[in-house]
Amino acid sequence: MNDLKQQALHYHEFPRPGKISVESSKPCETAAELSLAYTPGVAAPVMEIHSDPANAYRYTNKGNLVAVITDGTAVLGLGNVGALAGKPVMEGKGVLFKRFAGIDVFDIEINAPSIESFIETVVNISPTFGGINLEDIAAPHCFRIEKELRERLDIPVFHDDQHGTAVITTAALLNALELQGKSLATAKIVFLGAGAAGTATARLLKTMGATDITLVDKSGVLHSGRKDICEHSRELVRDTDLYTLADMMPGADVFIGVSAANALPPELLKLMAPRPVVFALANPDPEILPATAHSIRDDLIMATGRSDFPNQVNNALCFPFLFRGALDARARQITQGMQIAAAKALAGLAREPVPQQVLDAYNLKELKFGKDYIIPKPFDPRLMERVAPAVAKAVEQNA
Amino acid sequence: MNDLKQQALHYHEFPRPGKISVESSKPCETAAELSLAYTPGVAAPVMEIHSDPANAYRYTNKGNLVAVITDGTAVLGLGNVGALAGKPVMEGKGVLFKRFAGIDVFDIEINAPSIESFIETVVNISPTFGGINLEDIAAPHCFRIEKELRERLDIPVFHDDQHGTAVITTAALLNALELQGKSLATAKIVFLGAGAAGTATARLLKTMGATDITLVDKSGVLHSGRKDICEHSRELVRDTDLYTLADMMPGADVFIGVSAANALPPELLKLMAPRPVVFALANPDPEILPATAHSIRDDLIMATGRSDFPNQVNNALCFPFLFRGALDARARQITQGMQIAAAKALAGLAREPVPQQVLDAYNLKELKFGKDYIIPKPFDPRLMERVAPAVAKAVEQNA
Repeated sequence: MNDLKQQALHYHEFPRPGKISVESSKPCETAAELSLAYTPGVAAPVMEIHSDPANAYRYTNKGNLVAVITDGTAVLGLGNVGALAGKPVMEGKGVLFKRFAGIDVFDIEINAPSIESFIETVVNISPTFGGINLEDIAAPHCFRIEKELRERLDIPVFHDDQHGTAVITTAALLNALELQGKSLATAKIVFLGAGAAGTATARLLKTMGATDITLVDKSGVLHSGRKDICEHSRELVRDTDLYTLADMMPGADVFIGVSAANALPPELLKLMAPRPVVFALANPDPEILPATAHSIRDDLIMATGRSDFPNQVNNALCFPFLFRGALDARARQITQGMQIAAAKALAGLAREPVPQQVLDAYNLKELKFGKDYIIPKPFDPRLMERVAPAVAKAVEQNA
Repeated sequence: MNDLKQQALHYHEFPRPGKISVESSKPCETAAELSLAYTPGVAAPVMEIHSDPANAYRYTNKGNLVAVITDGTAVLGLGNVGALAGKPVMEGKGVLFKRFAGIDVFDIEINAPSIESFIETVVNISPTFGGINLEDIAAPHCFRIEKELRERLDIPVFHDDQHGTAVITTAALLNALELQGKSLATAKIVFLGAGAAGTATARLLKTMGATDITLVDKSGVLHSGRKDICEHSRELVRDTDLYTLADMMPGADVFIGVSAANALPPELLKLMAPRPVVFALANPDPEILPATAHSIRDDLIMATGRSDFPNQVNNALCFPFLFRGALDARARQITQGMQIAAAKALAGLAREPVPQQVLDAYNLKELKFGKDYIIPKPFDPRLMERVAPAVAKAVEQNA
C-alpha cells in the first residue's frame, strides 16, 4: 500500500498539480475568433438567453455540465476530513464523468457554517449547471440536503453515495437472485448498515417489489420500538421482536453489508438459507473476505466493492450513464423510475456475451454470466450505449 | 452587426453548445490509472491535504483555478440580464484566461436573493479556488461585495470591471502623458463616469501621484456639497463650486470617459489644454469617435475600448497576467502595488520594438511607440513574460 500511496501522490503532483484542466472547446486563436467568443460577438447569445432561459442549453455548456459537490464530511472511508481535503476525490469523480460519459464537471468544495447555508449556496450557484451530483456528505444531513435541493431546483440532483450504490447493488442482486433461483418478491433480505447507501438501496428494492427487508445498524435491528431512528429511515423500520444481526441471519437469502470491515461473523454465514447472496460492500475491507466466505460454504454468490475480487459493485457503472441519459433527455430530476431503468439495463448487459475489447482491457480470457460475473465491468463501452438510452427512455415515459 | 450576430450564435451552438470543456490532465485510460486518480489511490492526497491545507496547491488544481463569478447585474453594456444570461460572457472570460495565461476557470453564475447571500455563497465555495475574479456586477453593490470578500478570504479577489480597467487605463495614460510632455503629478484630469471603472482608475492614479482629479457623473461634478455620493466614492469628492462637465473641461489635460456613447460634446474638446489626452472608453460606442476628435484638433492622443481603432484599452491585457503573477507567487490578495507593477510593465512594453510575430498577428507592417501605439496588443506573447513576473515580484516585495 505504501507503494500505491507514493505512486498516487506522484500522479497527483506531476507534471502539474491536480487532475483537471479547463479548455476552450471552440477555436480562439485569432482576434476574429476572440471577437466571437467574447466582446462584441458574445452579446448575441446573452440576449438570446435573456429572452428565453432555455437557450442556455443551446449557447452555453450548461446542458453538459455537472457540479460534483461535497462538504467533506464523509470522504471515502476517511470520515470528516473537511471540504478542501475532499478536492482530490471530487476532481477524480470529474475525471470519471468525462472518461466514461463525456460529461464536463466542476468540482465544488463547500465549507458552510450550517446545513441551511450549504443548501442556499448550492441553490444560488445552480444556474451554472445542468445537474448536481452530491458526494461524500455524511448521513443523516445528506438526506435533508438532497430532499430540499430536489424540491427547490429544476435540474437533476443526485446523491451518488445513496442512489448510485442502490442502482448497482440492485442490478447485481437481480442477477444473483436469478442465478440462485430466487425471486426478489420472496427473498429474505438483511442489510447491515442503515446509512446513506443502505437506506437508499432498501428503498429501491422495496419499490421493485421486495417484501422482506430488515435493516440492522450498530444498535441492532431498525424495529418499531426504537426511539433513535431518524425521520428519513422511519418507513424502513420493522415491527419485530428480533433485535440483532444474529437474530436475523438464520434463513436469510440475501446479506447486504454497507457497514465496516469484518462486520459479518463467519458463523452467521453458516445460518443463511441455501444458495445465499452475500454482498460485502464495505471499502476498502469488506464485511467478510471472499476467501473466508467461500471456505465456509460453496453455494453462495458474492460481490464486494473491491476491484481485485470478482463482481465489483462500482459506482462508476452508474453515475456517468445515469447523468448522460438525464442530461440528454433534459430531465428535471432523477426519479426512481430512471434508477430502475439503469439497474435493469446493467443487469441485462451482464447476461450478454462479452466483447473481446472488454476481455483485453482486463487481460481476461473469458467472462461469462455466472457466479463470478453478475455485473458489467466499468471499461465496457456498451455501458454508454445501453444504460444512458434506457435512462433517457424512462424520462420520456415519465417513469 | 447582424452578420456578426449570426456568426456568434453559430460559433456558440455548433458543433456543441458553449465554449468550454473540462478535461483530465492526467492519463486515465486503464484500470491502474483510474485506481490512482480515484479510489483507492486518491486517499493519499486527501490525507496529505487533511494534515496540511497548503498541500491542496500540491495535489489539486486549486492553485491554477480561478472562479469567474457574476450575478448578471451589469453584463457588458446590456445591464441587468440576470445570472444565467451572463454565462456566455463568463465562459468567454475563461477562454481568455486559458488562452493568454494558462489559467483554468470555472464560470459560476450566482442567483442570490440578497447581497449578503451572494457574499456568503462565494465565501462558502472559495475552498475550491486559488482566486476569485468578480465580473459584470453593478455598482454600487460591487464595491461592498469586493470589500467584504477581500476581508474574509485568504485568496486573491479581483473585480475586473474596476481594477482591470484601472490598470490598463493607467498604463496607457503613463505613455500618453510622456508623449505629450506632461506629468501625472500636475496633469488636470477629468473623468466622465464615476462607476466601477471610473472610481477605481481615479483611485489608482491618486496612489501613483495624480493630484488634480475631478469625477463627473450624470448629476455633475462629484463635489463636497452633494448628498448622493455613496460611501465608496466619498474620498474622491472635490471641494469646488464647478458643477458640470462644461465647467471642468477648459484647460483639462486628460479626459477619461467611462460613461456612454457620444457623451463628450465636440465643442468641449476644443477647450482642453494643448496636447490633451482623450480616452473615450464607453463600449461599443465611445464618448467621442476618433474621426470626430481628430477633425477638431490634431494635437491629441486618443484611446478607446474598440479593437477597430488604435490604442484599445482592453482588459485582456491585464487580468490573465495579473492572476498568473498572483497565483505563481501565492498572493493572498491583489494589492494596489501589484496593480501598479502591472501598469508599469504594460507601459514599458509598449515602448519597446514590436516583434514580427505580433505584426503578423495583426497583419501590420509597422507598430512603433507613438500616438497610435501607447499600449501593447493582446496577442503579444511578451505580455506573459513581462507582466506576470512583474506582478509576482511585487508580491514578493509586499508592494
